[in-house]
Amino acid sequence: MSAGCVIGVDLGGTKLLAGVVDADLNVHHRVFRHAREGKGPDQLLDVLVAAVEEAREAADGEVRAVGFGVPSLVDPATGVANTTVHLPLRDVPLKDVMAERLGVPVAVDNDANAAMVAEHRHGAAVGASCAALLTLGTGIGGGIVADGRVVRGAHGGAGEWGHMVIAADGPLCTCGNRGCLEMLVSGTALGRAAAEAAVALPDSGFGRALAAGRSITGMLATELAHDGDPVARDVVASIGHYLGVGIGNVVNILNPEVVVVGGGVIAAGELLLAPARKVVAERALAPSRDQVRIVPTRFGDASGMIGAAVLAMDLVA
Amino acid sequence: MSAGCVIGVDLGGTKLLAGVVDADLNVHHRVFRHAREGKGPDQLLDVLVAAVEEAREAADGEVRAVGFGVPSLVDPATGVANTTVHLPLRDVPLKDVMAERLGVPVAVDNDANAAMVAEHRHGAAVGASCAALLTLGTGIGGGIVADGRVVRGAHGGAGEWGHMVIAADGPLCTCGNRGCLEMLVSGTALGRAAAEAAVALPDSGFGRALAAGRSITGMLATELAHDGDPVARDVVASIGHYLGVGIGNVVNILNPEVVVVGGGVIAAGELLLAPARKVVAERALAPSRDQVRIVPTRFGDASGMIGAAVLAMDLVA
Repeated sequence: MSAGCVIGVDLGGTKLLAGVVDADLNVHHRVFRHAREGKGPDQLLDVLVAAVEEAREAADGEVRAVGFGVPSLVDPATGVANTTVHLPLRDVPLKDVMAERLGVPVAVDNDANAAMVAEHRHGAAVGASCAALLTLGTGIGGGIVADGRVVRGAHGGAGEWGHMVIAADGPLCTCGNRGCLEMLVSGTALGRAAAEAAVALPDSGFGRALAAGRSITGMLATELAHDGDPVARDVVASIGHYLGVGIGNVVNILNPEVVVVGGGVIAAGELLLAPARKVVAERALAPSRDQVRIVPTRFGDASGMIGAAVLAMDLVA
Repeated sequence: MSAGCVIGVDLGGTKLLAGVVDADLNVHHRVFRHAREGKGPDQLLDVLVAAVEEAREAADGEVRAVGFGVPSLVDPATGVANTTVHLPLRDVPLKDVMAERLGVPVAVDNDANAAMVAEHRHGAAVGASCAALLTLGTGIGGGIVADGRVVRGAHGGAGEWGHMVIAADGPLCTCGNRGCLEMLVSGTALGRAAAEAAVALPDSGFGRALAAGRSITGMLATELAHDGDPVARDVVASIGHYLGVGIGNVVNILNPEVVVVGGGVIAAGELLLAPARKVVAERALAPSRDQVRIVPTRFGDASGMIGAAVLAMDLVA
């Protein structure tokens, strides 16, 4: 490997993915961790350092910089993680702390902004003047590109599509709001819908899995749906329906050329996106609804990690 | 008046406001029309020309350019009004047609983008890197500023906050979608809520107005609310509540420094904005919710007209 490699780290609400990435965006070593091994801020920082060090030892050449995508509002000027719903990162000066502990330049951005950077510069949104990204995982992360640039907002808080209310009097969200898109469309929502189906329909694939002692998760729903299980397909499609309502809002608000959908839930592929596209075609404004492409991430579940690596490369370019 | 004046025209869903505007943004002559005098596209264009000519005759000096804000998606490259929910402007090449008929350079933009330009360059959002505007009238228009520039989207369709769904299974909107913010928060929504109160509560101010043969409108609701009528205040506050849900979404999506609220309904002032701010404080994400100012337009109901004039000035600057 050339001397030009960097490490990208995507810290999700439950999972951590790190990788050694070269200048051609080839990923050479992947490291997985459970994010929740770190219960407090200090333990979480230790998990991050350990993951980076494991990747660095596996790398053939020098690691020139490290980028982190974190599920938090990140102040772009200071690299401070201000708030996060899912992890203990409140007011942590992540950029400075990690630069000191790792001894290399460090970039920090919101995980979904990092994914947006990867997809806009090298992936499914290349060339778009206006684009949006939604990553469906434990929660929903989001990114925005307008006039060719990632929109971070006044203080790094832009792009939180997951906390866009689509049901004003709907269920209480972890953020304190009601009826957020994240409550209806994330991987957590998919797992919840699957678990309800398992109880309500004991003869279904979900019901049999439950009886066999399996965990009823969003991943199981995706797996059964791909196998043709009709109940699982309905559950995935119902998530796709509300995803379509959310993307319809994105279309009306931004008039993007492309909406990119990533995160673990995109493993469902067209079983998720086809119902979403149908809702957008029916409900969003013309001609914006006819001009938008709704596509999966090019980098699959690795967009955030690769985007974090791209941000790290920018530091040493 | 100097030779440098222009005419700005704000075409709303029901009203048209034109004005002769000088370089210091002083408005010298105002012309009002009912937009719906023009039933088809040709009649509507005649109404626009007549309004401009009336203003031009009243102007002391030469009118160097004319700007139009229209309640339509406008392609920024061509000045074609693509689609409108409220008026017959579908696929009308407004910029070219008006330039030919008026004999001066013509600027055309979405009415709410025009208002956003006025408020960002000279009004309540001066200096903001990231801002949003909602104009509450017959419908809801919207504008976005990111990184200091008005965001128009891929084809001029950005900023349609009025057609952001906040009640996924809510009432059918004129656009074909369900539960759009416009169905719950526009002047039309305010008038509808007032009319329902008039019937339900015959002893209320609304009920007495109805018995006296008055039209129960949003404007009456605002008037009674300012007079201290408790039912009218509740009606305005309930609109303010859903406005707050909508602005909470704006805050989570854009992390703006300021959200500017205009249109006819802003005549209710703090009776509308105080309940909206309360909802944003309770439901939007920290720290974005604490960083945002929620304020009325500086130019009141004239933001769109003045913004159209500013766009016209840009043509001859």
